[in-house]
Amino acid sequence: MACSSGGSTTMVFPAPYRRQEPLIDFRPVLLVVGLLLLIVGVAMLLPSLVGFARGSPNGEAFFASASFTVAVAGLMVAANRVPILTITRRQTFVLVALAWTGLPAFAALPFVFSELDLSFTDAYFEAMSGVTTTGSTVLVGLDQMAPSLLLWRALLQWLGGIGIIVMAMAILPLLRTGGMQLFHAESSDRYEKPFPRATQFVSALVLAYVLLSIACGVAYRLAGMTMFDAVIHAMTTLSTGGYSSHDASFGHFKSPLIEWLAVLFMLAGALPFVLYVRAARGDAKVLRDRQVQVFLTVVLISSLALAAWLTTYKGLLLLDAVRLTAFNVTSVITTTGFASADYNLWGGLAVGIMFYLTFVGGCTGSTAGAIKIFRFRVMAIVLSDHLLQRFYPHGVSNRTYDGKPLDEDVVEGVLAFAVVYATSVGAIALGLAALDLDWITSLSGAATAVGNVGPGLGEIIGPAGNFASLPDGAKWLLAFGMLLGRLELFTVIVLLAPRFWRG
Amino acid sequence: MACSSGGSTTMVFPAPYRRQEPLIDFRPVLLVVGLLLLIVGVAMLLPSLVGFARGSPNGEAFFASASFTVAVAGLMVAANRVPILTITRRQTFVLVALAWTGLPAFAALPFVFSELDLSFTDAYFEAMSGVTTTGSTVLVGLDQMAPSLLLWRALLQWLGGIGIIVMAMAILPLLRTGGMQLFHAESSDRYEKPFPRATQFVSALVLAYVLLSIACGVAYRLAGMTMFDAVIHAMTTLSTGGYSSHDASFGHFKSPLIEWLAVLFMLAGALPFVLYVRAARGDAKVLRDRQVQVFLTVVLISSLALAAWLTTYKGLLLLDAVRLTAFNVTSVITTTGFASADYNLWGGLAVGIMFYLTFVGGCTGSTAGAIKIFRFRVMAIVLSDHLLQRFYPHGVSNRTYDGKPLDEDVVEGVLAFAVVYATSVGAIALGLAALDLDWITSLSGAATAVGNVGPGLGEIIGPAGNFASLPDGAKWLLAFGMLLGRLELFTVIVLLAPRFWRG
Repeated sequence: MACSSGGSTTMVFPAPYRRQEPLIDFRPVLLVVGLLLLIVGVAMLLPSLVGFARGSPNGEAFFASASFTVAVAGLMVAANRVPILTITRRQTFVLVALAWTGLPAFAALPFVFSELDLSFTDAYFEAMSGVTTTGSTVLVGLDQMAPSLLLWRALLQWLGGIGIIVMAMAILPLLRTGGMQLFHAESSDRYEKPFPRATQFVSALVLAYVLLSIACGVAYRLAGMTMFDAVIHAMTTLSTGGYSSHDASFGHFKSPLIEWLAVLFMLAGALPFVLYVRAARGDAKVLRDRQVQVFLTVVLISSLALAAWLTTYKGLLLLDAVRLTAFNVTSVITTTGFASADYNLWGGLAVGIMFYLTFVGGCTGSTAGAIKIFRFRVMAIVLSDHLLQRFYPHGVSNRTYDGKPLDEDVVEGVLAFAVVYATSVGAIALGLAALDLDWITSLSGAATAVGNVGPGLGEIIGPAGNFASLPDGAKWLLAFGMLLGRLELFTVIVLLAPRFWRG
Repeated sequence: MACSSGGSTTMVFPAPYRRQEPLIDFRPVLLVVGLLLLIVGVAMLLPSLVGFARGSPNGEAFFASASFTVAVAGLMVAANRVPILTITRRQTFVLVALAWTGLPAFAALPFVFSELDLSFTDAYFEAMSGVTTTGSTVLVGLDQMAPSLLLWRALLQWLGGIGIIVMAMAILPLLRTGGMQLFHAESSDRYEKPFPRATQFVSALVLAYVLLSIACGVAYRLAGMTMFDAVIHAMTTLSTGGYSSHDASFGHFKSPLIEWLAVLFMLAGALPFVLYVRAARGDAKVLRDRQVQVFLTVVLISSLALAAWLTTYKGLLLLDAVRLTAFNVTSVITTTGFASADYNLWGGLAVGIMFYLTFVGGCTGSTAGAIKIFRFRVMAIVLSDHLLQRFYPHGVSNRTYDGKPLDEDVVEGVLAFAVVYATSVGAIALGLAALDLDWITSLSGAATAVGNVGPGLGEIIGPAGNFASLPDGAKWLLAFGMLLGRLELFTVIVLLAPRFWRG
């Protein structure tokens, strides 16, 4: 999707710039978006089949949506059949943004046409929350909902999950934003070679994703879920999405075994998928990946600390406490958003830890969102080195990340990302508050949207709550936040600058 | 207090380091702390006089505290009479930390010995909140309280205010932390010359502070305050401290004029005091100071936006709304902490704006705390330049602060400061939550302590609340947060590193 001219790894504009050409040739962009839309349209046929098989009118709703989507996609592809030899950075920005805003608009159609009869705002919110693997929902009564609709929500998350993995490994490093250039070299020796190897690498990622999803589904089924629940939850676990087919989420199953399996596979979804590919090729270094070690350590410490506190102050049995905290800590830090209990009722420390974990996220190249482990590592490395230099001038500067020197470029990208992340959450929170939502709902709502987590804090949008009652403006704002977070901020923000469109 | 060897402006250790000498010679440190303690002891005589004049037993309590403090101070000075020719950076760190933790311990004595009969925890909290000009209080029944005690609280803030101004201009830039080195050059051409000029500069700062305090007191008196209230509130306004002699704070006076005067003088206390000195010398550039312009713009926009929202959604009259928001926005952003109304009741947007303003703070070289305007400016400059470089590689890098190029050193210091600030607030908040406080109290309590603001959010520690009911552990944690914020973080953190003490 992203290749470079002349074999160089960065994409530059021809200089001097030729005025007579249009600034951006939209044809290759629309061609690729059309192809992706085709996948969405075809995917709709699956719930359509389920609907028809059950004799439900939703079958027709999905079929109509599929037909319309495929038709539009076909027209887009047919009208823009250009050979894609090179694609510029500018085109890539537009492509990414257009794909992640346009596809949910079509994915929303079944929610409007089906018996749910949602408004377009609600449908778009639900679809955006799906493809960005956020998992916030406006739907209630999931236990009584038609299987076709439940399947579609799960499919959206599953497709969105693999979409983000491929994008994070193949496209974002090329855009050199937010410190993602750190992973440029990593992917380049496997991917940035001529197309056959790139295709091979992406296929391997997809294969790992599919196999893990199947393993998760089989495990859920064996642990006692129905076949349908196992399929749905496997798709939304591996994608760290968090949509469930029950209003009580994992609380419905009342099964410690199922909860521990979910912990395992949520963690699996939040690890770098490139590691699975390497491990399959016999690369033993995988187990020593520092990003993974730090991530798992944070999960372990947060879970145990919170469990100890719940045991001491709230009188829970230690084993129950560990299971509860491990599940909910993992659910939030992996940005999945499943719930097994309402941690709002556990007291200030639980709320506080969950609030912070909303910002942490998993590893890069996974389906998890938020700031992500590698950025915290880079910040910690820079900070400790900076302080050492400040106060012990005789020390030797040591800024290496996994043995490689840390570029100033990466450091600034990471720090800029952290500042813009905090600012984005802040701005969206103030926007929600201006719509007269209380501050806990506003702040945690903004954080959960930008982090692609799912539930917020407080009574309204907490793990026991729902986004249905929010005003329309808040839903659009939150959907924008999900997009912003999923595309790692800068990819969206750069499009908002008038300068981007002026050349 | 801080001078350098050989005329160079940074203080370095003699190399090679001579092992036979002790790592830190504490004598000059204890000498200076003793001298500062002497000031505190002598200052206690003022409330002592007020107490005796009123025939209250508090007179004796203050006199006893003063005697003890002066005796200890005298012993410290006598035992450490060394000529201070040079003072190392290491000694400066110890000096600053010792002064700001030790002085409050003595300043707390009158609260223990007087009719208040506070526990040492409460007394230390109140004294630390005073000298750091935070303004959080554990005392209730201020309206019935003895004048000597009210005067002592105000005096603590007033002395702490001038202490921080002198420290921010004369010491912190030399420690090269948190981007404060930006102000090194600024002070050096006026201060870092031989002692006579340094003394002259500090005297000018103190004079500006005294004159503004008198102007504020006179204005308050003319606007209708009693003489005593005018004196008390002038001292706690200019120091952006926020202690009042009434439980209802400025709500007590029910006077729009007094509230507007407070807005004016709180702003005056949050501007760089060096500007007053320059203005008095006829420097016309003062009005074009970008730091001041940005600061006032934030105040104006926040106040008007919130007023418009209150008028629209909560049905207030525009003029009342503007006065209410201007007062409370100014009170929080200048880190004063006076209250004229309980903005917790104004809805999510007000709570949200107040939450963010808790982090903003005033200008450097003022009595205001928190992150401060210049750091936001540096972050904005770096961020916009970084994004420009990222996405429009043909652009020219432009990193200047007030026309001077921005050193990498300053940029990193500022970013490190922001990260450590957020981490400190986060860690203290989690600590408070672990003591079973609710999350809004924990998070806003940590933010208001580290920012030296005063009131938090929520019912317990909000503008209508009080810190008295918190557990002792929380009070010590908050007192530590105040110290951390007042000393610009790194000055404290570096002392916690074992490496500092090993050499």
